[in-house]
Amino acid sequence: MTKYSFDRLHQFAVNLFMKIGCPIEQAIEAANVLLSADLRGVDSHGVARLVGYLRLYEKNRINSKPQISVVHETPSTAVVDGDAGLGLVAGPYAMRLAIEKAKNVGTGWISVKNSNHYGIAGYHAMMALEADCIGISMTNASPLVAPTYSKERLLGTNPIAVAVPAENEPPFVADMATTTAANGKLEILQRKNESAPLGWLQDKEGQPTQAAQGIVEGGALLPLGGDREHGSHKGYILGSIVDILSAVLSGANFGPWVPPFVSFLDPDPNPVGIGIGHFFGALRIDAFRPASEFKTHMDIWIKRFRNATTINETNKVIIPGDPERRMDQLRRKEGIPLLDTVVKDLQSLSEQYQVKF
Amino acid sequence: MTKYSFDRLHQFAVNLFMKIGCPIEQAIEAANVLLSADLRGVDSHGVARLVGYLRLYEKNRINSKPQISVVHETPSTAVVDGDAGLGLVAGPYAMRLAIEKAKNVGTGWISVKNSNHYGIAGYHAMMALEADCIGISMTNASPLVAPTYSKERLLGTNPIAVAVPAENEPPFVADMATTTAANGKLEILQRKNESAPLGWLQDKEGQPTQAAQGIVEGGALLPLGGDREHGSHKGYILGSIVDILSAVLSGANFGPWVPPFVSFLDPDPNPVGIGIGHFFGALRIDAFRPASEFKTHMDIWIKRFRNATTINETNKVIIPGDPERRMDQLRRKEGIPLLDTVVKDLQSLSEQYQVKF
Repeated sequence: MTKYSFDRLHQFAVNLFMKIGCPIEQAIEAANVLLSADLRGVDSHGVARLVGYLRLYEKNRINSKPQISVVHETPSTAVVDGDAGLGLVAGPYAMRLAIEKAKNVGTGWISVKNSNHYGIAGYHAMMALEADCIGISMTNASPLVAPTYSKERLLGTNPIAVAVPAENEPPFVADMATTTAANGKLEILQRKNESAPLGWLQDKEGQPTQAAQGIVEGGALLPLGGDREHGSHKGYILGSIVDILSAVLSGANFGPWVPPFVSFLDPDPNPVGIGIGHFFGALRIDAFRPASEFKTHMDIWIKRFRNATTINETNKVIIPGDPERRMDQLRRKEGIPLLDTVVKDLQSLSEQYQVKF
Repeated sequence: MTKYSFDRLHQFAVNLFMKIGCPIEQAIEAANVLLSADLRGVDSHGVARLVGYLRLYEKNRINSKPQISVVHETPSTAVVDGDAGLGLVAGPYAMRLAIEKAKNVGTGWISVKNSNHYGIAGYHAMMALEADCIGISMTNASPLVAPTYSKERLLGTNPIAVAVPAENEPPFVADMATTTAANGKLEILQRKNESAPLGWLQDKEGQPTQAAQGIVEGGALLPLGGDREHGSHKGYILGSIVDILSAVLSGANFGPWVPPFVSFLDPDPNPVGIGIGHFFGALRIDAFRPASEFKTHMDIWIKRFRNATTINETNKVIIPGDPERRMDQLRRKEGIPLLDTVVKDLQSLSEQYQVKF
């Protein structure tokens, strides 16, 4: 583990994106989204993914100069075509449109097709905060998850993020995969060669397994809940709703047809839609009640939950977004620790693309 | 268990609501919502709850002649004041308003305060289907759920329902508590004196318990996921989002301040809002893409999931709404089975209010 400054990693990402042809504003935007993951401690979704995006670009699966467009719209809705560009760029574009609509008619809701991986869901949701809006962000993803009773992987980890502004308290920022555990958590276990808790995974026969590498051997991640008795049908429902709003509503690929993020797996030759899909929402607070009233009540909500009587003294009740915000503050100051394998990837990208790391 | 026809139970509910002063249209609407639970097999939320509503009425906690009003609105949003009436009436009122706004500007989003229990979440979401809208419905509820690490009960079972129209397939209708198990499931175990699976409950010290009556002895229901390792923080997040959209956005009570549904527990003398809160959404399909295209794709989605290769031959992958729809068809034909205790309650209401059962 070596620590790198935010500025150094951000500049590298910007230069790399520009090298493959991204316009400078898009390169900066994409780097912002990517680095927000590193800062917030979601290491799986930060610069560690740069090599993944580049491999997809090399396979002509990512368009570095997308003409993002609005396909259809009403005062509170739109479908956006990402033109096969980075989701890291289409996401902020769509979220800005949602916020603009919220300013005009109270809320804005954008479904995006023809996109690619959009980084952490929370980044996009948080864009709404400075406009005094509640922000919502979700996306479908490579099929890795078996619905309850299924042997097949039909859904992605399909995350949901919601950001809510408060007055004196920091905002409530939730960002969660709809599986028991996010794929990033599993990758950590795989690297350490450790086993996973029961309830995270099934093997290729659909039986519960603790083998973290089970997922690469035809197994599947399990929907939040783990098994039927513990509500896995609810995790399956949540993942399905994300899939429908992100992709059936926009015309992107859904379910098992979602193109895999990894470049060594080819997309389905008979797609049902185009690219992957996202869904964004912005609700202007004062389209409901005065923003100051709402935010004062959010402060009460947050304080009451944070100060709840707990089972033991070690663990306080956590307000969603608190740990990530603390990590962000720390890493801006002390740097972002990267695994040696990630550093090696960045160095080889640096050589391949002749971009200084 | 004796079976009663839909018509008989519906008429009884209508007459009872009218007897306490509900205008006839409101009495019919409330009975429609209530009976939809009995038809769909959600026995805990149907006529078995009539006695609960009546006890609250007797304590002056339910207003039988509410003047429901719009407090504030924009083209795509509104806050509705339920005037302390039945949520069974305020819910459909707000959902109709959401659908009307969706017709005008693409989507409609209504947050409701000063309301009471609104029956099954799914009823309201399904109202959107005939308008070719996606319907969303959620509500907060009596605090029975302990967030991850908390010994205290700070959230309700806060359900989320989403209804999505399809073309030739029946609609996708999800309706789920954000806890591992709904309270109704627990009540069934309590009546049968059976123990609950681990992961459903904690006792008053916050320790895992299988004692179904633990909840009445100061214990708590657990958020979907059950424990931290299995993602209970995500169930806690979901319940929190429902609470915020339903109550902080409308000005209703939130978190531990939500007035209890049972009449023998008094509401907090220092409330933070007014009544309980709901949140409704309607998204007009063709505000995104042509409805026929969308619905054809929903058919593909539904068929692909329904026909997934399964782990065993007994259990197929279930499309949300399928079991409830089958139950509805069966019970309309063969009648609604009621437990003797429920029949006794209805008979005593019949005597008390001089309404023929």
